Amino acid sequence: MLNNITHVRGFKCWGAHMGIKSKRRDLALIYSEVPASAAAVFTRNIVCAEPVKLSREHIKGGKAQAIVINSGNANACTGKEGWKGAVAMAETTAELLDIPKEMVLVASTGLIGEPFPTEKVLGGIKECVRKLSNREMAGSLTANAILTTDTFAKEGFNSFEINGTTINMAGIAKGSGMIHPNMGTMLGFITCDIAIDPKLLDEALRKAVDRSFNMITVDGDTSTNDMVAILCNGKAENKEITEKDKHYEKFYKHLEKLCTHLAKLIVSDGEGSTKLVEYQVKGAESEKDARQIVRTVSNSNLVKTAVFGSDPNWGRIVAAAGRAGVTFDPDKVDLYIGSNPEHSVAILKQGQPVKEGRSIVKNEMKSSTITIILDLNQGSAQATGWGSDFSYEYVRINAEYTT
Amino acid sequence: MLNNITHVRGFKCWGAHMGIKSKRRDLALIYSEVPASAAAVFTRNIVCAEPVKLSREHIKGGKAQAIVINSGNANACTGKEGWKGAVAMAETTAELLDIPKEMVLVASTGLIGEPFPTEKVLGGIKECVRKLSNREMAGSLTANAILTTDTFAKEGFNSFEINGTTINMAGIAKGSGMIHPNMGTMLGFITCDIAIDPKLLDEALRKAVDRSFNMITVDGDTSTNDMVAILCNGKAENKEITEKDKHYEKFYKHLEKLCTHLAKLIVSDGEGSTKLVEYQVKGAESEKDARQIVRTVSNSNLVKTAVFGSDPNWGRIVAAAGRAGVTFDPDKVDLYIGSNPEHSVAILKQGQPVKEGRSIVKNEMKSSTITIILDLNQGSAQATGWGSDFSYEYVRINAEYTT
Repeated sequence: MLNNITHVRGFKCWGAHMGIKSKRRDLALIYSEVPASAAAVFTRNIVCAEPVKLSREHIKGGKAQAIVINSGNANACTGKEGWKGAVAMAETTAELLDIPKEMVLVASTGLIGEPFPTEKVLGGIKECVRKLSNREMAGSLTANAILTTDTFAKEGFNSFEINGTTINMAGIAKGSGMIHPNMGTMLGFITCDIAIDPKLLDEALRKAVDRSFNMITVDGDTSTNDMVAILCNGKAENKEITEKDKHYEKFYKHLEKLCTHLAKLIVSDGEGSTKLVEYQVKGAESEKDARQIVRTVSNSNLVKTAVFGSDPNWGRIVAAAGRAGVTFDPDKVDLYIGSNPEHSVAILKQGQPVKEGRSIVKNEMKSSTITIILDLNQGSAQATGWGSDFSYEYVRINAEYTT
Repeated sequence: MLNNITHVRGFKCWGAHMGIKSKRRDLALIYSEVPASAAAVFTRNIVCAEPVKLSREHIKGGKAQAIVINSGNANACTGKEGWKGAVAMAETTAELLDIPKEMVLVASTGLIGEPFPTEKVLGGIKECVRKLSNREMAGSLTANAILTTDTFAKEGFNSFEINGTTINMAGIAKGSGMIHPNMGTMLGFITCDIAIDPKLLDEALRKAVDRSFNMITVDGDTSTNDMVAILCNGKAENKEITEKDKHYEKFYKHLEKLCTHLAKLIVSDGEGSTKLVEYQVKGAESEKDARQIVRTVSNSNLVKTAVFGSDPNWGRIVAAAGRAGVTFDPDKVDLYIGSNPEHSVAILKQGQPVKEGRSIVKNEMKSSTITIILDLNQGSAQATGWGSDFSYEYVRINAEYTT
C-alpha cells in the first residue's frame, strides 16, 4: 500500500516533537476540514487511561473532527491531574481549531503512572495546529509521532469506487508492547472521505476490529490505552450510505482489509519479534471456539519460544489448544505447520503423530513467516489470528523499559 | 525441612536410570507395603497424557499401593501405542510387586508427541522393584528421577502428633516448565503414614492443591501431564480419621504447608527464573476474585520482565489486574512493593501515584524475593500466589528444548 492520510480528501495532519521523548516526534494531530461521521472502540481493561475516559464521552454523538495523540506518557494511573491534562488537550485543540471540544478525540500512549506533562503537550498542540498540512510528508510525520517502542511507522491506504466515485481510506497504527487487544485495541486511526451514517460506521468498525486488531498478540497484556478510531468526512460526495447495501459491504470489505494490514504490521514489529506467525483454527463448532483457541495458542510463551528457536516442539501447540476452555476430541485433531499456508506439512493426523514429521517441520520453521493450522474436524467454523515469537530481545526491551 | 519418603513408615522407593535421558535417572517407584488410602488430582487440559487417563481410572477405588513415574517422555499425543505403554507400566509394576494393577498409579513427564519407549521403561521398572529400599538415599534418587529441566530435586517433610502418635508426611515434586496448574498440577507425590478415610483424604488434597500448586505459575502453560497424588498407609496406627474433627484439621494444615513448600520450590526453580515473587491480593469481594487477579498478574510477561530487570514499572501490575475479568474501582486501589511482606513500600494509594515511589521501589526490586501487594479496598477476601520472573535464560531453554 502507498499513499497516506493526506491523500484522503479534506484531511490535514502533523506530527511534532514537544519533548516528552528525547528525540523522536511525540505529538500528532489529525484534522478533518468538516465534521465527520466517527466511531471508536476502546480497551476493555478495567484500569483505563484518562484520554480513553474522555474520548468515550466525546464519541457518543457519532461525530468528530480532530484526533490529538501524544506518545511517551500513557496518562494512565495519573489521578486527577491526569484527567485535567486530557481535558486540556481536547479544549486547547478545539479552541485553536475553532470547533466544539466534543468534536475532539484524545489518545495517549507510553509509560503508565508518570505525572502527565500537560504544558509540554499543549505546546505541541499549538505547533501542530499551526503546521497542519496535506503535503505527503505530514502523513509520515503523523504516523511516526504516535510510536513508542515501534521500530517503524505503520501506515495503510485503500481506494475503491462507489457508483463511479473514488473513495480513499488511510490508516495509521502503533504497537509494539502490551499488545493483546480485547475488543478495543492498541492505537489505530483511520480516515476516509466516504459519506456514511455514524451508526453503520460504528457497526462496521467493531466487526473489522474484531477480525483484525483483536486477533493479534505480542505479549498477552491488554493495554490501558487501547483505541481505534475512524473519521469519515463525506468529502468524496458519494450518496451517504445509510443501509447495509452492496456499497456498505464494499466499504466494510476494504475497512477489514486495511485493519488486517495494520494489525499484521504491528505483530511484525512486536517487541523483540523475529517471526510473524499466522494461526488458523478450522473445523470448530463455532467461530467463538476457533477464536478462543487461536488466542490461547498464539499467546503461549512455550509456542512462541519454540517458534523463535525453530524448534519443532509441536506438542506445545496441542497442549495450549487443550487449555483454551473449548471442548474438542483430541483424537480427531490434525495439525499442519508450514512456511506458508500453501506449503504446510502434516505432523498430526487424527490425533496420531506422523512419522518423521518433526524433522520435516523443523525446516519449515526456519522461515520468517510461519503458518500453523489446527483442524479440529468437529464442525465448519474457523478463525485466523497472528502472533509474534519470543526472543532474547523481548526480555531485554521489557526488563529495561522505564530505566 | 529434612528427611524424605523413606522416613514415612511402610514406604520404600527407588530411582533408576533406564535410558530415556542420556545421564540423569529417569524412572521412579514409590511403594507402600500395605494398601493405602489414596487421592489424586489431574490436569484439566483437554489434551491429557495416557498415564493421566489410566491413573484417573485406577484412583476411583480410593486405594493405591504404588506410584511409578518416568521422566524424559510425556507419553502425550502418542496415540494407541502410548496407551499400551501406560497400561504395560501399571501391569508390569503390579505383577512384580504382586498387587492388583488397579493399585498402581502411573505418571510421565517430558517431551510431548515422541513415541513412548515402553521396553526401556519396563526394564527400569524391574530394576526399581529389585532395588526398592527405605534407606535415605533411595528417597533422594526417587526425587531426582522425576525431574526434567529442573536444576534441583524438590523434597519436603513434615511430622506432627495425633493423640500422642507421631505422623510422618513426605513429598516430592518436579517443575520446571509448562507450569500454570489448573485444578490438577504438575507432578507431586506425597506419602504419609496416617490412617484416614479416602473420601476425606480426597477433599483435603483438593483444597490444599488449590491453595498451593494451583497458585503458582512459571510460564502460563498448563501441562498435559499434571498430577498430584497422595498415599496414606495407616502405618502410624492412629485411630482412622473418618470425620472433619480437630485431627483432620491438623492433618490438613500440615498437608497444605507441605504442598505450599513444594509449590514454592517449583517456582524458585522455574525455567530461567532468577527471582521468586509473592503476589497478595487483599480487599477483594471474594476469594475467587482475589485468586483470579493473582493468577493474571503473576502470569503477565510484562510484569515478569520488569521484575527480572528490577524495573519499577508498576503500571504494568495495575494494567494486568485490570484485564483479569474482575470488577473493581481503580480509584480505590493501593499498591505496595517490597523485598518482603514486612518491608513493602506504598507506590499507589487510593489510585493516586505516591511521589518518589518509583525510585524507592527500584531498590526493593533488586532483591531475589519480592512481595507485591494489591489492596482493592472493596471487601475482605484475599489470596496469595507465587510466580517466577522472565529472563534471557527462559528464552534460551525453550527455544532449544527438543533440539
